[in-house]
Amino acid sequence: MGANATMDLKDVEVIRYTATQKVNTSYNEYLDTKPAFIPTVTWINADGVQDQVLIETLLSPFKIHPLIIEDILIPGQRPKIESYEKYAYITAKMVYFVDEELVFEQLSILFDAQNVITIGEKKGDVFDMIRKRLEFTGNTLRNAPADHLVYAILDAIVDATFDALEILGDRIDEKEEELLKKPDIALLSDLRQYKRDLLYLHKAIWPLREVLSRMMHQEIKEVNEATIPYLRDVNDHIYQCIDSIETYRELLSGMMDLYLSSISNRLNEIMKVLTIISTIFIPLTFLAGLYGMNFKYMPEIPWVYGYPMVLTVMLVIAGGMLLYFKRKKWF
Amino acid sequence: MGANATMDLKDVEVIRYTATQKVNTSYNEYLDTKPAFIPTVTWINADGVQDQVLIETLLSPFKIHPLIIEDILIPGQRPKIESYEKYAYITAKMVYFVDEELVFEQLSILFDAQNVITIGEKKGDVFDMIRKRLEFTGNTLRNAPADHLVYAILDAIVDATFDALEILGDRIDEKEEELLKKPDIALLSDLRQYKRDLLYLHKAIWPLREVLSRMMHQEIKEVNEATIPYLRDVNDHIYQCIDSIETYRELLSGMMDLYLSSISNRLNEIMKVLTIISTIFIPLTFLAGLYGMNFKYMPEIPWVYGYPMVLTVMLVIAGGMLLYFKRKKWF
Amino acid sequence: MGANATMDLKDVEVIRYTATQKVNTSYNEYLDTKPAFIPTVTWINADGVQDQVLIETLLSPFKIHPLIIEDILIPGQRPKIESYEKYAYITAKMVYFVDEELVFEQLSILFDAQNVITIGEKKGDVFDMIRKRLEFTGNTLRNAPADHLVYAILDAIVDATFDALEILGDRIDEKEEELLKKPDIALLSDLRQYKRDLLYLHKAIWPLREVLSRMMHQEIKEVNEATIPYLRDVNDHIYQCIDSIETYRELLSGMMDLYLSSISNRLNEIMKVLTIISTIFIPLTFLAGLYGMNFKYMPEIPWVYGYPMVLTVMLVIAGGMLLYFKRKKWF
Amino acid sequence: MGANATMDLKDVEVIRYTATQKVNTSYNEYLDTKPAFIPTVTWINADGVQDQVLIETLLSPFKIHPLIIEDILIPGQRPKIESYEKYAYITAKMVYFVDEELVFEQLSILFDAQNVITIGEKKGDVFDMIRKRLEFTGNTLRNAPADHLVYAILDAIVDATFDALEILGDRIDEKEEELLKKPDIALLSDLRQYKRDLLYLHKAIWPLREVLSRMMHQEIKEVNEATIPYLRDVNDHIYQCIDSIETYRELLSGMMDLYLSSISNRLNEIMKVLTIISTIFIPLTFLAGLYGMNFKYMPEIPWVYGYPMVLTVMLVIAGGMLLYFKRKKWF
Amino acid sequence: MGANATMDLKDVEVIRYTATQKVNTSYNEYLDTKPAFIPTVTWINADGVQDQVLIETLLSPFKIHPLIIEDILIPGQRPKIESYEKYAYITAKMVYFVDEELVFEQLSILFDAQNVITIGEKKGDVFDMIRKRLEFTGNTLRNAPADHLVYAILDAIVDATFDALEILGDRIDEKEEELLKKPDIALLSDLRQYKRDLLYLHKAIWPLREVLSRMMHQEIKEVNEATIPYLRDVNDHIYQCIDSIETYRELLSGMMDLYLSSISNRLNEIMKVLTIISTIFIPLTFLAGLYGMNFKYMPEIPWVYGYPMVLTVMLVIAGGMLLYFKRKKWF
Repeated sequence: MGANATMDLKDVEVIRYTATQKVNTSYNEYLDTKPAFIPTVTWINADGVQDQVLIETLLSPFKIHPLIIEDILIPGQRPKIESYEKYAYITAKMVYFVDEELVFEQLSILFDAQNVITIGEKKGDVFDMIRKRLEFTGNTLRNAPADHLVYAILDAIVDATFDALEILGDRIDEKEEELLKKPDIALLSDLRQYKRDLLYLHKAIWPLREVLSRMMHQEIKEVNEATIPYLRDVNDHIYQCIDSIETYRELLSGMMDLYLSSISNRLNEIMKVLTIISTIFIPLTFLAGLYGMNFKYMPEIPWVYGYPMVLTVMLVIAGGMLLYFKRKKWF
Repeated sequence: MGANATMDLKDVEVIRYTATQKVNTSYNEYLDTKPAFIPTVTWINADGVQDQVLIETLLSPFKIHPLIIEDILIPGQRPKIESYEKYAYITAKMVYFVDEELVFEQLSILFDAQNVITIGEKKGDVFDMIRKRLEFTGNTLRNAPADHLVYAILDAIVDATFDALEILGDRIDEKEEELLKKPDIALLSDLRQYKRDLLYLHKAIWPLREVLSRMMHQEIKEVNEATIPYLRDVNDHIYQCIDSIETYRELLSGMMDLYLSSISNRLNEIMKVLTIISTIFIPLTFLAGLYGMNFKYMPEIPWVYGYPMVLTVMLVIAGGMLLYFKRKKWF
Repeated sequence: MGANATMDLKDVEVIRYTATQKVNTSYNEYLDTKPAFIPTVTWINADGVQDQVLIETLLSPFKIHPLIIEDILIPGQRPKIESYEKYAYITAKMVYFVDEELVFEQLSILFDAQNVITIGEKKGDVFDMIRKRLEFTGNTLRNAPADHLVYAILDAIVDATFDALEILGDRIDEKEEELLKKPDIALLSDLRQYKRDLLYLHKAIWPLREVLSRMMHQEIKEVNEATIPYLRDVNDHIYQCIDSIETYRELLSGMMDLYLSSISNRLNEIMKVLTIISTIFIPLTFLAGLYGMNFKYMPEIPWVYGYPMVLTVMLVIAGGMLLYFKRKKWF
Repeated sequence: MGANATMDLKDVEVIRYTATQKVNTSYNEYLDTKPAFIPTVTWINADGVQDQVLIETLLSPFKIHPLIIEDILIPGQRPKIESYEKYAYITAKMVYFVDEELVFEQLSILFDAQNVITIGEKKGDVFDMIRKRLEFTGNTLRNAPADHLVYAILDAIVDATFDALEILGDRIDEKEEELLKKPDIALLSDLRQYKRDLLYLHKAIWPLREVLSRMMHQEIKEVNEATIPYLRDVNDHIYQCIDSIETYRELLSGMMDLYLSSISNRLNEIMKVLTIISTIFIPLTFLAGLYGMNFKYMPEIPWVYGYPMVLTVMLVIAGGMLLYFKRKKWF
Repeated sequence: MGANATMDLKDVEVIRYTATQKVNTSYNEYLDTKPAFIPTVTWINADGVQDQVLIETLLSPFKIHPLIIEDILIPGQRPKIESYEKYAYITAKMVYFVDEELVFEQLSILFDAQNVITIGEKKGDVFDMIRKRLEFTGNTLRNAPADHLVYAILDAIVDATFDALEILGDRIDEKEEELLKKPDIALLSDLRQYKRDLLYLHKAIWPLREVLSRMMHQEIKEVNEATIPYLRDVNDHIYQCIDSIETYRELLSGMMDLYLSSISNRLNEIMKVLTIISTIFIPLTFLAGLYGMNFKYMPEIPWVYGYPMVLTVMLVIAGGMLLYFKRKKWF
């Protein structure tokens, strides 16, 4: 809890608001000064803070169970909700695209009736929409207690997941068109990447169902009944996400099949060309070789019509072959 | 709520009826005039209305929760039912073919004991059968309260899905016959389209089970007990749809297998032709080449029977090859 | 209910019996005359009756819900049981082979404590065993009330399904042996047909579990406790059917794999032949071509041992190639 | 129940025991003579008796429901347990190897508090271990009532299944090594046989879970509480069997994949050889053919360095090709 | 229980501790001497003891059910928990890497309120972390009763499994990169090994869920409520393990697909080279052969421009072919 630690805590964003008043302060100010009004909700958002000392300092006023602090620090937690005596704890995954690449960031949410603390694993979040809505008075978010802010955060997370899914879906569609035009092995590693992304998206969103279900069935005492219809809405969106993931996965596996059959098809095309050319010319070449033999006694050699006759025979053979392939519908 | 908005609302269809009386009015008349009789049921059908102001105007007399209005406006909702204090809300998907293409249209249904409001995403619906039945007195629909109209709407939706499935099934069968006649990569993209359609049909119909289940178990207070056997009937049809989708999906994946093995088979056929021709003529061509060499001292060259002897050897080789392939059942 | 309709109803089979007495009458007689004894059970079997007027006439004395009559008339119902105030209603599928082809026939069963009405979709049924047992007194069927007849009918349906499955299983085994002897693409369409049959058999038998389960758990008031051990027996048979279907499906999909690997294997065999012949003769042909060149100054040409030397070199090359392929275990 | 029938019943094994005394008699003696002591448990083991008259005679003192006798006579029953007023009835499958082949034998167990009757479908059983333990006094089996013998029988069955599984597992491992050494289509039919065996083993052992579960949850009144820990042990073994079956199935399907990719790999190897040889010699042969043409005016022909020049060109071409294939890592 | 047996028991590790005091003794000392303080917890850790006499001696003071001793001695138990009157019994699998190979070791845990006995199948365990924490006072482990030590053991097991999974995951990623660079059949047997490892890891960790679930729902009387949040933490880690296993399995099966399509792709590449070379040179060789024929009367032969004309024709043919392949995008 040295000067160093408290210095970094100045990046922590603190928003305190009631239906009518609102103030943005730094964490230090928040600690030092009493707000000019009694805030209904205090949102402490520590974005990209993953230092143990910092987090312990940050959470020290709230007496958080040490196992939770451990959880916050280890990325790769499965989304879940846990209810403790004085607060509730949610782990979730924020998903967004940074430079063409899907980023999964762990978000830890701690909340009681008045305070919401969010701790992100990396810099960057998906809460701009919430900040904007907090600017204006008169909307549900400003009028409601802390659990509505938690809903707004979960909603933002699910919406961001949905957006990421849509981007992914568009890319998959693009690749499909490319695949139909020109099947290329390079596409496969893209498909694999999308499959991997969908796998991780599924892992990020699937356990949220249970989080929402427990919140909706009032197993979490911090959640008020008025928030339940809103949570139901988030829940619907989660199911839509899961449906979309399932759909995209089926489409991807279909594309893999399509790729394999295009490859087989191409092989067939190649073999057809080889077989047509070979089977037409191999007998002709044999015939030419036959009359290239040097035997002394070959009756056809001195014959005046030998050459034109052989040419005619060759034409007949070639024509017959072509007819045969035509009938077999090879071209 | 300007003149503009109210002008468009004139397309909204309003049907008011009791067991004995019935009147079709426009939305404006509905607002302005009292009906000449006390209607048991009022059906307000806003087909293809997706403008926020219009919908808010339309629903303003009913005090609908803003989250529902949001839901109505965003297509791609998962079918669901929600019960509110004064009304119930259903989202479903109407499915029909327009010009060879499957169309999925979101339908929002709001209803209480006397009123049913349906809002479609696009122009066009599947309710002609209901309109016809409303023309006649004496049938169950005319005699029953509003929840029976909701049943009729759900029934029409499921029946339309079933019809779409049958059309799809017929096409799949046609493609299968084509596939057996001539496997062609162009068929694959048709198969993929069908698979996609089945995927979306599944997504449209699967969640309806839960809607029906909740209505049947009287979790929705607007649903009367007399309607339950009818809902059970719709429920059975939903399961039939799901079964059919499952069957068609299995058939489609079987066709994919069939396609791949046809392709492999064709490759085998092509390779057989190439191999037969090549392996017969390659040794003969070698023999011809052998006697085409210009060595001064080759005993066979000046021999009188050299040429006929070589021809005989060639015939024997070719015959032996053919016998070998015959025994291997290559043709 | 014209003369026409009642004329066709004469085909309806009516059997009335107690433990000691039994009479077979036509439907008209049944309507007109009182039986000489008080029958415990009346079985009205309308085989292949699918005319709406006929069915309405037939069922008019029993006051059946119009939705049921609709269900009876539309084939493709999912097997189910429904309990109404005065009777219970079962839909099931009879399965039997007619001329090598599997036939699925919808059977509707309506029953109360004294009457059992069965309406088949097509001519032909699987009830001969029941008719025979009704001929004799002293067996459980004759001594028991109507619900035991319903059990006997369900038992006959499941047994017929089992028989059909056994026939199908034998055919699949035959095809497998054929496949191992000579893989042929024509077999594939047979396999597909079997797969389709198994799919439909599954659809026919799977929902019967629920019918039996509801009967066994006494949700159907017409079912007496004494019948439950018998129903449990039918239930066991249904599970055996489902197990067999699962087994056959796995075997079929295994055969598909086997077919594909036989095809691949054949391709390998063909390619080996081509490669062995080609790679042996191509270098030899080149050598022959080399000495077929007409250059004025080629030292080997006038050499006396040129020709035997070249032949020796060719033999060495051919022998070396053969050794190489031998070592690679190509033949 | 003639002399004939009773003669065959002499093969039936009857063991009567208490904690301290034990006697082995034949069935006839058992019927005729009273034992010298009051036995706690009587085990009647009719091995390989499948004649209806015999079984009816055998069971006549116990008043068994006719449906059970039917079940005993029809092989292919699904393992199950049924509780009747005076006794309980278990059907299970004994599995053992006879001459390299897996044998499935139906075993019917009837038991009450004092008697256990086991009827096997074929000669041969897996109970030697039980007979041995019955020889000695002082062990749990001798001291416990009849339900402990039933446990011992079920334990022996599950152990035998486990042993069969281990043998199968060893064979699968052997085949895998063979497959890696030399992929051969003949292995495939072995793999198929193993897959079939696993399928049937699964069908034999899977439903036993329910039998054990019902026994453990005291739904069977003949089962004493003291036996439950032992049954739990059998239950654990069943789950181990099921796990092993699942593992072996996955390994088998992995081997199928391995086989297919080995085949593809071999095809690639063959094609590489063909392509290397062909593409090297085809241009050379063309060059040789070129200078084998008989045109009067070909400037290279009379040139003294024509022949060595052509040979040099040929060497360069062949070397270039080899380098190209080297760079493509074809050998 | 001879001198021999007791001698080997000296390897058994005994740790006795309270919050403030701790002593490490040998098993003999433990038996002979009373500790200088009243220990809250005694941990007896018999690592790699699998001798029946030893284990019976070791457990004799605790009166353990003989079925448990049997279980301890037979490796391959499925992880489970069993509650007995005076103690609880857990079987689990420790997983760790020894020299590049995954080792699965059965661990049996017996515990009551004061004692924890752990018996490992092989030498070597994953408990170093626990031993270290026991060195220090003031941590939760030292302050808590025996069930917290059981938690620590389970936690160590799950963490070790997680570590093994991470190592496996890294290797799979490495192999994937290798596969993308150069697909080689040798990689397949590695993939198979990983698949097998994942299969066994799944078998080891999956049943632990139930163990934890029963402990968390207080079905095990030895588990105190204070330990439950810690067990919940282990439970979360188990689910993370299972998720990871699932992910790695999907990735592995994707790699198999990738391998197969690389193989197909390579075949296509090889066939393209062969086809391009063959189809270009085969017609040229035919032409050369044509003018190598020895017919007396061939008008082109004595023509002065015959040779350059033929060369030109050949160039045109070769160029045309190359253009055709270019247009087909073969290179």
